[in-house]
Amino acid sequence: MQNETLLMMPGPVPVPERVRLAMATQAINHRGSDFSAVYDEITERLGPMFGTKNDIYLLSGSGTAGMEAAIGNFCANKTVACLVNGKFGDRLCKLSGLYGTAVECASEWGTPLPLDQLETALENGAEAVTLVHNETSAAIKNPAEAVGKLCKKHDALFILDGITSIAGDVVEADKWGADIAVVGSQKCLAAPAGMAAISVSERAWDHLAEWRPFYLDMAAYKKSGAKSQTPYTPAIPLFFALREACRVIDDEGLKNRIMRHKTCSAAMRAAAWAWGLELFATPDDLHQYSNTVTAFSYPEGIDDGEFRGRIKKMGIEFSGGQDHLKGKIFRIGSMGATDIPEVLAVLAAVQDTLRHFGFEPEHDGVQAAAEVL
Amino acid sequence: MQNETLLMMPGPVPVPERVRLAMATQAINHRGSDFSAVYDEITERLGPMFGTKNDIYLLSGSGTAGMEAAIGNFCANKTVACLVNGKFGDRLCKLSGLYGTAVECASEWGTPLPLDQLETALENGAEAVTLVHNETSAAIKNPAEAVGKLCKKHDALFILDGITSIAGDVVEADKWGADIAVVGSQKCLAAPAGMAAISVSERAWDHLAEWRPFYLDMAAYKKSGAKSQTPYTPAIPLFFALREACRVIDDEGLKNRIMRHKTCSAAMRAAAWAWGLELFATPDDLHQYSNTVTAFSYPEGIDDGEFRGRIKKMGIEFSGGQDHLKGKIFRIGSMGATDIPEVLAVLAAVQDTLRHFGFEPEHDGVQAAAEVL
Repeated sequence: MQNETLLMMPGPVPVPERVRLAMATQAINHRGSDFSAVYDEITERLGPMFGTKNDIYLLSGSGTAGMEAAIGNFCANKTVACLVNGKFGDRLCKLSGLYGTAVECASEWGTPLPLDQLETALENGAEAVTLVHNETSAAIKNPAEAVGKLCKKHDALFILDGITSIAGDVVEADKWGADIAVVGSQKCLAAPAGMAAISVSERAWDHLAEWRPFYLDMAAYKKSGAKSQTPYTPAIPLFFALREACRVIDDEGLKNRIMRHKTCSAAMRAAAWAWGLELFATPDDLHQYSNTVTAFSYPEGIDDGEFRGRIKKMGIEFSGGQDHLKGKIFRIGSMGATDIPEVLAVLAAVQDTLRHFGFEPEHDGVQAAAEVL
Repeated sequence: MQNETLLMMPGPVPVPERVRLAMATQAINHRGSDFSAVYDEITERLGPMFGTKNDIYLLSGSGTAGMEAAIGNFCANKTVACLVNGKFGDRLCKLSGLYGTAVECASEWGTPLPLDQLETALENGAEAVTLVHNETSAAIKNPAEAVGKLCKKHDALFILDGITSIAGDVVEADKWGADIAVVGSQKCLAAPAGMAAISVSERAWDHLAEWRPFYLDMAAYKKSGAKSQTPYTPAIPLFFALREACRVIDDEGLKNRIMRHKTCSAAMRAAAWAWGLELFATPDDLHQYSNTVTAFSYPEGIDDGEFRGRIKKMGIEFSGGQDHLKGKIFRIGSMGATDIPEVLAVLAAVQDTLRHFGFEPEHDGVQAAAEVL
């Protein structure tokens, strides 16, 4: 839209108008019943998206704050096996090393995780496991259920980063045995950036660390949560927005929403294959491609800055690669409220820009995508 | 207003409409130049409010997150002298004990701080000092300049909690030698809750701890801040709002704003004295009453819940006492955008409710306040 960029990054994502307008509500007393009603509605609506009956806590901070809350409170002084096939897996490994001892079980970014390494780490005494369910840096979905089974077998705590999958893909925290699961507001929930939600199992509470960070002290969140409050002043407008975003999701229906995400990402992949452009991720099977973000490898000779710069001038923004993948891939999110028009628009802009920079697509990717949609 | 409570707590405060509407702006790329422009405008406008030329960093978290960033990064493993005459002083003491060794220099809540104890602690080797400039739990303003002089004399780091004074009262971080100063968004800035800003002196960076929390790692904020970005996804709508709130402040003029805060709180005190109601704080001189919140002691026999409950039904909310002061005092904020109509309204409601519960005021406090305003 004029004066507004179409944001197709893997988060923050465009926020529906009714969610944004919810933030225009005047401030309320964060210790009063009006706030508690907002709090309760959010946690109740989030439960099915997490696939959990565990208590959910709302943090005024990013998804990274949520993951620090998970690891800082429940993995301190433990040996933590960290599954890594991308930037966010790596971040959890850093966090685990900060609070305990991290054992990295890594494969190349975008390739299937080395579950044999995980099993060895568990046999050697790892007490907790971190997994990024949907690794946006590489656009691969990791096998949460299989990891959960290994955790159960070895009685290890299972910390699931669902930041970019919850509310956009199937997540069954309880069924998979995830003791902790975390979501970020600005991803598939299509709420504004700035909040995280974390579910905590009964079993996890037995592992609560003695030394805990202060702002992210989960014992304080538990105590306040029992009164449907937060221990420190919450980001009130973001709570209004998140409540509205949850209502939007329930209006659509979670199943429909997940199907929409699957369809949109399938359309992205169909375009890549039609163009003859490589997808960066190389999962074992089709079901392990991310359903919320797609990573395309650049054809040789195309400059990332020029490529995305040209598309930005068309009013569309998406992401490049992170760390060692800078300049090598581009990543397009199809999260949250993103639907057919946005997917078609971004693919048409990409197709035109590929041609502009000398890459002649094998087939019409936009058409291929439209057929999926 | 109908369907809207007049919020007269010491934060969160009512947020001006243009600030709230700024949050309705669509999400933007937090790694792009548009976001950096917002970031830069906020930090530039905050400088004079802090009274500092030091770099300022913007955290997506509450004031408590800001104070944890201060203490967790710059006071770790140090002996920290903590000045305490209220709840927030006490919180800094807890935080200091979490990361280092806290030496409490405490007086009764609402009474002048024991600077002699501070001097002793410094002589005994305390390497850092925490001070709550404006202690909202007791409505007393603490002598930041004098504390700064003692810190300078003993070469100690000076950590100034300006959460409820910055932008509502005179703060001269550089002149007072404050190495770290922190403000919260939902107080005198009249922005929504959920953000903190922290200034860091060159000297403080020399004290950066080796082990640092992750989400609040100030080294990461410094690195990203150099690019006018944040290390983790920022709460984008709160940045839009804070920018607008800073513009509102500069439109009014900082001096005018501080004068308005002084006048409003002077009017609150005038009402108390006219009623014959005790103020809770007992500072050495008039200038040490808080200029942003007033604490009134309840006359005997008035129940806090009934008292504030009746006033809430009139559409006005303010705070009771915290911790051991529950039921003993009530606290009315006059922060941010609060002006003559709000002060008169709350005082009229209080006066009527005092009478309702059998306390006959000596004089007309509303009239006394009006004369000040």
